[in-house]
Amino acid sequence: MSAATAVVKGLVLSRPVTFVTGNAKKLEEVRAILGNSIPFQSLKLDLPELQGEPEDISKEKAKIAAKEVNGPVLVEDTCLCFNALKGLPGPYIKWFLQKIGHEGLNNLLMAYEDKSAYALCIFSLALGPNMEPITFLGKTAGKIVPAKGPNDFGWDPVFQPDGYNETYAEMPKEEKNKISHRSKALSLVKSHFAEAGYTFQTDTTIAELDHGNPI
Amino acid sequence: MSAATAVVKGLVLSRPVTFVTGNAKKLEEVRAILGNSIPFQSLKLDLPELQGEPEDISKEKAKIAAKEVNGPVLVEDTCLCFNALKGLPGPYIKWFLQKIGHEGLNNLLMAYEDKSAYALCIFSLALGPNMEPITFLGKTAGKIVPAKGPNDFGWDPVFQPDGYNETYAEMPKEEKNKISHRSKALSLVKSHFAEAGYTFQTDTTIAELDHGNPI
Repeated sequence: MSAATAVVKGLVLSRPVTFVTGNAKKLEEVRAILGNSIPFQSLKLDLPELQGEPEDISKEKAKIAAKEVNGPVLVEDTCLCFNALKGLPGPYIKWFLQKIGHEGLNNLLMAYEDKSAYALCIFSLALGPNMEPITFLGKTAGKIVPAKGPNDFGWDPVFQPDGYNETYAEMPKEEKNKISHRSKALSLVKSHFAEAGYTFQTDTTIAELDHGNPI
Repeated sequence: MSAATAVVKGLVLSRPVTFVTGNAKKLEEVRAILGNSIPFQSLKLDLPELQGEPEDISKEKAKIAAKEVNGPVLVEDTCLCFNALKGLPGPYIKWFLQKIGHEGLNNLLMAYEDKSAYALCIFSLALGPNMEPITFLGKTAGKIVPAKGPNDFGWDPVFQPDGYNETYAEMPKEEKNKISHRSKALSLVKSHFAEAGYTFQTDTTIAELDHGNPI
């Protein structure tokens, strides 16, 4: 083991954390918030998308990814949950957006006065294969409104956070990043890394093969 | 190889087909329709439930099951697809029923005059691990109505098949079985077995499961 391993506390991770995404926008957002606080690489993996409760889906995905990568992974899931529909479409929002669009999402709530909703972001960190993932939940409350603003990022035009007269889509990016479900979850991820004091072996000769020695 | 194997045409399957289900009602229905036409056993497997298009979900599940069982498997999936919602909730109907109930399902269509829907049943047959599954689709058209009839089988009380004034839940079982999405899919499964002429090895270790030569 290297000298670095001997002097620091906390778990030793043999490789940088792999953030599993094929979405350049998400990668950019994660990089902007995590900065250089942890060694970090990204990888597009074709992981199965599961049904179930949001947290379970995310954990299961992290487990599968950690096996594939054979190292520490971070995975991300986003849900848009309508309170009148008891949290649905939730993890299935992607399909609803794709099939019925912004107007269709509003129509789902036609029968209800309650248009409240929350945007939920879950990051799951699995430190290695067969390790129980740790989850980080970021939640932003708001309501579903007829689409307003640029239509270039998913359901952002129909989600208006509480306390704002603008939808996510209408807000300046810096403003949205201050209150977004994703930034909340990511700041929890960042705090976790700061507190856990993991050591990353960054020696290029061992980066690929050595799986480290958990203390 | 047995003598029987040598003289018959068609693929030789070394084991009975495993129907993956933990649902006694489904098993009973499948047994009633397939009868003794194929050697057949059932098994409850904890398979991942995937997101995606109905046929893809079913095929993927069959592939996973065939690997776990290491033999031929039959899996079943049911969707309830609302035309106004472009086929959704579809494969996610289970979660919608669980969270928002029969009234909630009706409410999803409040914004639309079109209450038409179809019940979709998909069986996928994977003859072994790493073999591309064959799918059998049964579809019954109808509409979503306020719940009527006994409330003991999922969304049956809100689905009224075209040409009937009764919901699935109100129909006598024999009547429902004549027109149901599941019976349509199963009769395709049955025809497939009759036409494909698979041979099942009837070695003594599985003799108790053998229901005779399909040809």
